[in-house]
Amino acid sequence: MAVNLTAPTADKLLPVAGVKLATVSAGIKKPGRQDVVLIELAEGSETAAVYTRNAFCAAPVILARQNQKHTASRYLLINSGNANAGTGERGMQAAKQCCQAVADLTGVDASAVLPFSTGVIGQPLPVDKITAVLPEARDKLAEDNWMQAAQAIMTTDTVAKARSMQIELGGKTVTITGISKGSGMIRPDMATMLAYITTDAAVSQAVLKTMLHKAMNQTFNRITVDGDTSTNDACVLVATGQAGNKPVSNITSEEGERLLTALTDICRYLAQAIVRDGEGATKFIAIAVKQGQSQEECRMAAYAIAHSPLVKTALFASDPNWGRILAAVGRSGIDDLDVSTVSINIGDVCIVDRGQPAEDYTEEKGQAVMDESEIDITVWLGRGQAEDMVWTCDFSYDYVKINAEYRT
Amino acid sequence: MAVNLTAPTADKLLPVAGVKLATVSAGIKKPGRQDVVLIELAEGSETAAVYTRNAFCAAPVILARQNQKHTASRYLLINSGNANAGTGERGMQAAKQCCQAVADLTGVDASAVLPFSTGVIGQPLPVDKITAVLPEARDKLAEDNWMQAAQAIMTTDTVAKARSMQIELGGKTVTITGISKGSGMIRPDMATMLAYITTDAAVSQAVLKTMLHKAMNQTFNRITVDGDTSTNDACVLVATGQAGNKPVSNITSEEGERLLTALTDICRYLAQAIVRDGEGATKFIAIAVKQGQSQEECRMAAYAIAHSPLVKTALFASDPNWGRILAAVGRSGIDDLDVSTVSINIGDVCIVDRGQPAEDYTEEKGQAVMDESEIDITVWLGRGQAEDMVWTCDFSYDYVKINAEYRT
Repeated sequence: MAVNLTAPTADKLLPVAGVKLATVSAGIKKPGRQDVVLIELAEGSETAAVYTRNAFCAAPVILARQNQKHTASRYLLINSGNANAGTGERGMQAAKQCCQAVADLTGVDASAVLPFSTGVIGQPLPVDKITAVLPEARDKLAEDNWMQAAQAIMTTDTVAKARSMQIELGGKTVTITGISKGSGMIRPDMATMLAYITTDAAVSQAVLKTMLHKAMNQTFNRITVDGDTSTNDACVLVATGQAGNKPVSNITSEEGERLLTALTDICRYLAQAIVRDGEGATKFIAIAVKQGQSQEECRMAAYAIAHSPLVKTALFASDPNWGRILAAVGRSGIDDLDVSTVSINIGDVCIVDRGQPAEDYTEEKGQAVMDESEIDITVWLGRGQAEDMVWTCDFSYDYVKINAEYRT
Repeated sequence: MAVNLTAPTADKLLPVAGVKLATVSAGIKKPGRQDVVLIELAEGSETAAVYTRNAFCAAPVILARQNQKHTASRYLLINSGNANAGTGERGMQAAKQCCQAVADLTGVDASAVLPFSTGVIGQPLPVDKITAVLPEARDKLAEDNWMQAAQAIMTTDTVAKARSMQIELGGKTVTITGISKGSGMIRPDMATMLAYITTDAAVSQAVLKTMLHKAMNQTFNRITVDGDTSTNDACVLVATGQAGNKPVSNITSEEGERLLTALTDICRYLAQAIVRDGEGATKFIAIAVKQGQSQEECRMAAYAIAHSPLVKTALFASDPNWGRILAAVGRSGIDDLDVSTVSINIGDVCIVDRGQPAEDYTEEKGQAVMDESEIDITVWLGRGQAEDMVWTCDFSYDYVKINAEYRT
């Protein structure tokens, strides 16, 4: 049960000129499930992407990174049910065969196809099953299949994640639509779980890349479910240029800033949706750490809280066991932390006031704020001006259940 | 249910000349439970101790550290049921009052008393309850109360942790007896959960200190249950010098090495006992990382595996989902890790052979080794000579249950 998250209705997802999608069923893990998505990008589209930094990154990640450098991307091929990770050379061949099959069908070069996989690690990708359904996928390509695509890339997700937005840019209406998936093995590291955001805005390649990094840094790179960075994370941003606006070639221009704001809004929604649908999640937690000497130390403290199994189980139990938050800050590795300058709030309830237990704290106040399904934790380090934040969820019986039974 | 761990019978715990213990019931958390331990050290005893590095360390940790520097320690006062952490100035006063009460009863200076607390964080220590039972504790001091002491310091522990050993040193029989407690909030950082190891050997203060650090580094500092370093960790090593051996004043002497080996054996048993009795543990996991460029990077990889909730839940389910181990190594932050030199075993089953899935791996082999209650995970990085290891346990429904209901 996701926390305050429901899937959008299909009519809320706006087509993006220059982007067509199709979903088909290859029976990769479960017969009958739509598990392959083909996305076609119009000629002239600009693409920017970021990928996982996990050293054991999956074969499709390696190949997508290579292909994207080599040729303008025209097709994205995504499968769920199998991550094609930990599969070595054989996995690399499998990813290449899939791209070649798309190339053969559509007449583009194989390097114009970016492959993506998500699902179980360490099992051979069933290439034949995937290539067999590609002709059907090509025939079904249409602009209004966003909802089906969002559903097809789900694994342990319980809610499809998708969002659209329109803004005016140089007198033209520009549309942005994005989808994401992810629920477990979530701690993006300069990347994310699978996410695809497209716009029909005209944007130069350099600006698109910068925008992706800026938006990611404030959104997908600020979420964690379990601290486990995936082998398959990827986030792709496409601009087809078909809206007819004058190309955005300067990120600090008025148009550039407006587009970046809209992209960041979409990314924030999609990133938070992953946490709201975190495996077994019953609460959505926003952790802000302020007054640090550096953003880095603020982030360390925020992640120490976000990853503490003790904090996460207390949040699940709605138990205002605030000592666990304090202990997590204390062990987060900040150099020479003087606890006498540290204050901590849960919601608007102060629990630690400059190193001392807050005098007006009562168990009733703590209980009231912990009973909420959305909880803000704020830490003031009292030693500088930097700040950072992280979104996470709690840790429930269902997290254990989902991950103990994942392959059965 | 602890993993392959049962409490020793009381007769297996050998008295240490110069050390007397008493346990009494102060009703700190639960009426009737033995929750206060007083340990008396004979005059002339040498004491070494290490404490948590958590910046939010508890009042008793701050005071014990101060007192130990100031005066030769004569009494250790330990309570369970309340950590006296996150209690600010008031907590400091409470710890001082307890030490003063022991001093008043026994005629030593208050700084000759080291206070220790373990239990719930953030609640005022009931000083009056503790001081009220100290006279009874003093009257009950005896050499053969080790088992009672091991039981009295337990919190969420399910099994009392204690061990004795005798060795010959310079023609004299020397006894070492130690106790520890700990089950959750376990990731010692240059310290440990509560552990008290005593010997009647004569050892110089400098050698004792070095021995403690050496033994700790190979034992208590190599365990983790949940990655959460406690606010109250402390490990104390006492040498009363009453065995009559010529004092050990050189750690590299034959006697010095023999004593260090024995101490390390005791510490290893006590440290592993904490993991075997880790909250909700059903499996005991030893993770060794070899062929690293530095011990530090080996340790990073070992902890990444040991802290991964995905690895821990797969271990609980006996699911040979080895991709999660590989993913944890990949995200562990080792610089420029070339996965083509990395090999991974679970027990004697190779799962990754120089970056490729092992050719002779079968799900049956993986299942057989995962069904065991004791599992070795070995990673060869293939880039150097350094190595390190960590002991941990799995992550079960009961971990969530224990920590969601801890204060109820």
